[in-house]
Amino acid sequence: MTFELTILGCSSAIPVKGRFLTSQILNIREGFFLIDCGEGTQYRMLDYKIPKSKIENIFISHLHGDHIYGLPGLISSYNLNNRVKPLSIFGPIGLVPFLENALEYSYNHLGFDLNIITVDHNKYSVVFEDDNVKISAFPLKHRIPTVGYKFEEKSRLKNIKPEKISEYNLDYNQIRSAKYGNDVVLKSGEILKNSEVTLPPKHLRSYAYCSDTVYSESYIQYIKNVDLLYHESTYMSNMQEKAKLRGHSTTIDAANIAKKANAGKLILGHYSSRYHDLDPLLQEARSIFKNTELGLDGQNYNIELIENE
Amino acid sequence: MTFELTILGCSSAIPVKGRFLTSQILNIREGFFLIDCGEGTQYRMLDYKIPKSKIENIFISHLHGDHIYGLPGLISSYNLNNRVKPLSIFGPIGLVPFLENALEYSYNHLGFDLNIITVDHNKYSVVFEDDNVKISAFPLKHRIPTVGYKFEEKSRLKNIKPEKISEYNLDYNQIRSAKYGNDVVLKSGEILKNSEVTLPPKHLRSYAYCSDTVYSESYIQYIKNVDLLYHESTYMSNMQEKAKLRGHSTTIDAANIAKKANAGKLILGHYSSRYHDLDPLLQEARSIFKNTELGLDGQNYNIELIENE
Repeated sequence: MTFELTILGCSSAIPVKGRFLTSQILNIREGFFLIDCGEGTQYRMLDYKIPKSKIENIFISHLHGDHIYGLPGLISSYNLNNRVKPLSIFGPIGLVPFLENALEYSYNHLGFDLNIITVDHNKYSVVFEDDNVKISAFPLKHRIPTVGYKFEEKSRLKNIKPEKISEYNLDYNQIRSAKYGNDVVLKSGEILKNSEVTLPPKHLRSYAYCSDTVYSESYIQYIKNVDLLYHESTYMSNMQEKAKLRGHSTTIDAANIAKKANAGKLILGHYSSRYHDLDPLLQEARSIFKNTELGLDGQNYNIELIENE
Repeated sequence: MTFELTILGCSSAIPVKGRFLTSQILNIREGFFLIDCGEGTQYRMLDYKIPKSKIENIFISHLHGDHIYGLPGLISSYNLNNRVKPLSIFGPIGLVPFLENALEYSYNHLGFDLNIITVDHNKYSVVFEDDNVKISAFPLKHRIPTVGYKFEEKSRLKNIKPEKISEYNLDYNQIRSAKYGNDVVLKSGEILKNSEVTLPPKHLRSYAYCSDTVYSESYIQYIKNVDLLYHESTYMSNMQEKAKLRGHSTTIDAANIAKKANAGKLILGHYSSRYHDLDPLLQEARSIFKNTELGLDGQNYNIELIENE
């Protein structure tokens, strides 16, 4: 039951050797979600052996080039690979004309359905839901319409206590019904509470993505208690002025958000090209929020499933 | 007096690990010309230490994504690096709306002049000329408007035979005049033929770029006797049918063009992603045109200056 984030690019605006522009893959139980798609995302998928064809949904935070210029090439490669499966791309206003023009002027004739879904950048909304995951968008504070995304694992079927099956001689229909959370009606007419025959629910894992944004407590409400938080940290704290001016955060900002949101772990990223050694950024963030790690191209961040007690 | 080609990407349509999409740098006497700009071109410039800021002119063959999707990111990076120098981009019809839309919807406000020059894809034309080089475009035969480019070194000032300076006691003005090709008038009134005081002209080097195109003898006239010819070779000859259908060439096609054009050396490229080992493509081309090399990401191809006899 995988829940794993892979960073494909950790650089802000201008790439640096070894640091591609922003893009991430989130694998939730073998469902692959692409988050942002800076130039070169398809090369990083080759580098890190991402099963490109399994991606059906892409989530775009905003329309600055370093978060979207990899989209036309990725879509074009899907088409050349004879993709037939539909592809959905979620993102703020402007994504439709950006993609339509880019694809049209480069003579693409897609053989699959491309669904571009405009996300309202002014309010919280659930944008995607299936059996495994619920994905919501929420407003960030950047220079242009920008949203963050939260990915929440959904409750699965309950697991039955094995000893109860033999104890009550449960049949297929009774077990199936209990898995869905219902109480069990025995042949005698006796009713067993669901909690008596099922194991306690597992912890449902969550991930929140916040890039790009200036420090603001307005979005903490949407990311409360997430297990894993990615928060942009373009600058160190001695550049707080510039960060604010450009709608970005510092390492201290990111760490304070993680602390106030009660996140399990913080992943930094979107580093300015001025920083060659990233360790000072990590140390600065850790001074506020201990469980911080650097987001780096090609690194994986797992959230382990917490087993039943 | 450099004349050097560097391949930034040798893959066709879909990238392969180690093979980026089409892009090349031609360095003519420290003037850097970018030819096509597939996705990831700016990463390759970092990988191969190309002095990105020195590029003032970009030449685009056609508008398929694998030749242009690196442009918005490159332009955006120039802007973020506070470029003020103008940038000129030459290419067939459609380049203006492609770039204008891509830049507009991603909120770029350029701080430098971007000049996009539409090249007529139906006829030969000189598109650029300075003291060092003349660059012309000529029609290729692909599925959409496509041009090739020829880069020709221009004749420089002549070199004076050192012994003639002392023999005739030539002064600054006489030397300067002779360098420009004039005969020398001595103080005695005697006239020395220019050829008597100057060294014979050096060989003027040339490079032609042909991608993408189906085999056609129509463009041989424009690339006759070039020192270096890059010709696409998407497929091996057993895929001649498919090559023709898709407007591409085989290794044999490329080699035949090189032979008929009397090129000095042939560089192959634009390989289909189906080929992992490229040696069979090289051997096939060499069976027709011996002086062939594989174009590979990061490799340099020099044309040495032929010294005076």
